[in-house]
Amino acid sequence: MVIGAGPAGLSASRELVNMGMNVVLVERESYLGGTPKKLKYSLLFPELRPAGEVIDPLIKTVQESKNVKTYMETIVDGVKQEGNGFVVSLKDKKGATKTEKVSAIVAASGFEHFDSRRKYEYGYGVVPNIYQISDIERMLSENKLVTTTGKPPKRVAILLCVGSRDATIGNTYCSRVCCAVSTKQAMEIKERVPDATVHIYYMDIRTYGLMEDKLYWKSQLEYRVGFIRGRISEFMRGPNDTVIIKGEDTMNLNRALAVPYDMVILANGMELGLGSKQVAKALGLELEDHGFIKPMDPDRMPVQSTKKGIFLAGALTGPKTISDSITEGTAAAIKAYEYATKGIWEESDFNKKAMAQVVHH
Amino acid sequence: MVIGAGPAGLSASRELVNMGMNVVLVERESYLGGTPKKLKYSLLFPELRPAGEVIDPLIKTVQESKNVKTYMETIVDGVKQEGNGFVVSLKDKKGATKTEKVSAIVAASGFEHFDSRRKYEYGYGVVPNIYQISDIERMLSENKLVTTTGKPPKRVAILLCVGSRDATIGNTYCSRVCCAVSTKQAMEIKERVPDATVHIYYMDIRTYGLMEDKLYWKSQLEYRVGFIRGRISEFMRGPNDTVIIKGEDTMNLNRALAVPYDMVILANGMELGLGSKQVAKALGLELEDHGFIKPMDPDRMPVQSTKKGIFLAGALTGPKTISDSITEGTAAAIKAYEYATKGIWEESDFNKKAMAQVVHH
Repeated sequence: MVIGAGPAGLSASRELVNMGMNVVLVERESYLGGTPKKLKYSLLFPELRPAGEVIDPLIKTVQESKNVKTYMETIVDGVKQEGNGFVVSLKDKKGATKTEKVSAIVAASGFEHFDSRRKYEYGYGVVPNIYQISDIERMLSENKLVTTTGKPPKRVAILLCVGSRDATIGNTYCSRVCCAVSTKQAMEIKERVPDATVHIYYMDIRTYGLMEDKLYWKSQLEYRVGFIRGRISEFMRGPNDTVIIKGEDTMNLNRALAVPYDMVILANGMELGLGSKQVAKALGLELEDHGFIKPMDPDRMPVQSTKKGIFLAGALTGPKTISDSITEGTAAAIKAYEYATKGIWEESDFNKKAMAQVVHH
Repeated sequence: MVIGAGPAGLSASRELVNMGMNVVLVERESYLGGTPKKLKYSLLFPELRPAGEVIDPLIKTVQESKNVKTYMETIVDGVKQEGNGFVVSLKDKKGATKTEKVSAIVAASGFEHFDSRRKYEYGYGVVPNIYQISDIERMLSENKLVTTTGKPPKRVAILLCVGSRDATIGNTYCSRVCCAVSTKQAMEIKERVPDATVHIYYMDIRTYGLMEDKLYWKSQLEYRVGFIRGRISEFMRGPNDTVIIKGEDTMNLNRALAVPYDMVILANGMELGLGSKQVAKALGLELEDHGFIKPMDPDRMPVQSTKKGIFLAGALTGPKTISDSITEGTAAAIKAYEYATKGIWEESDFNKKAMAQVVHH
């Protein structure tokens, strides 16, 4: 059984089918493709290619396979060990229940975006022309990038780390992809509105690895996107539906800022979300300190859960790129196959050790 | 055939053996374990556990398997397609050659650290008490953290991005793991020398994802490691084998810095290295713009090479954590298995498209 039909779950399903397995795919929503489809992702970082180019072939493989039995608008309600396998209770949106007997489970139910309303001082949902990452993806993919005035924005501010790296809302982790997504959105905005001014307000720019020049440098050299290391304390409604942001530029003599924009984009982070929390509860999986699902051993076996026969793939173990989720789906598939056909399960005492013992070696 | 016996190659070998395949493992060095063994890694980030805890079980699985034929101190000299498989010529250090017939290949020959001598203005190899990441890993794992005076360092400076994000030496990418490794080293130093002052000079701190509080915050709150956003222009030899670093603190009024330390650590980055370049040449693989090996499609199929039947895992496609390398080894194994046993190979026209066409959609 694969739970979740996003990049990780589709990738796991594809490999299991390739291996000759029968797959029961359970998806809470009414469509395949996960968050990229739900939120209508536009181009993907760092290669700036349409999201469909990556997601659609995965969907197609699963749709065309005779060996995938798909339950849409269905959740996993509970699970009972039976021998080395599981009897899983499913429940659809009408409350009708069903059971399936499976040999192994891949949980790939993904993440949800942080709801920016929880960071109330940023005015999302209250002040006009303040948007979230996902609003902008949809506007870009639908080619409707306009403010409430009906016109394309001429001055855009992007604020990174909304709901991430922020102890005041309880998320001390970094959401890993928002720097890259936002830099990509900045370039997409400049492609559509070449004379727009786009400023990214940041703490650290984390376009790690090969993303560095594909995003960070490209956005500056080819698109003249501005990066301002600064702290934003407040948003105010300005004249003509503009937004005035107030803060401090930490690079230029801690100069006070009060700058008007037509559009403000909050780069809201990633959380486990209610869907995956429910999956964790139904399957009896443990959560780690940040609230994501805990792997048995994050270094040695990142796709094995703490519960025998259940494997993990994608953003339910922490913020992740689509490419990493696809790779994890592939890796989880082979582990699930090995478990289902040969009973292979590796042990680790990592979670049993106190960290203190490990540090003072 | 698996080329390279580091985390990625060992992980791929393990899965292939689990699947009942016979594996020919080719390793250039005289030991298994790859760079973590070669450079004697101490603790691994972000969990601060001994490297051996992660690497040794992988080595053991491969050593104990009757289905792995291992060639040590051997390189791949050339490859010839034969049907859907390959005839691979091997050459050992004495120049003796051998051929092996295999159905699929996983290339996992890894990276090499940037040689800090190439950034000559930093004085590595010339000014005493300037070290690289790998020197410090060895000193920590051997419990011999001392300067040339024979005493433990009381003042330590760590300089990030040496050989990374630096167009002057031709590496425009970010090496992804150095922020995390350096923060970990800072904590290990403070464990051993609690009254030491440790400063990390950085451009951006990239402890992305769940590493944020496990490393960045932990190092500040529990270990009082100092982070200074600054540019270092020069190192000078000071009295008593100290090093004086000159630069500019970009956060505090661009204040000029001239500060003495007992020990300076250059966080040197990752490159493809000669070993993997030779593998790429022998196998006929393409390189991407930064000089790493190019996957067929970095988003959809990151572990497939551009050449049919050859798969990729680990840092030869770009800077990567050990955990990511292990996951990729697992994923590459299933793809190699599917190719070897069922001829499954996925096509993508990603590399054939000009980026411009993709951007202007």
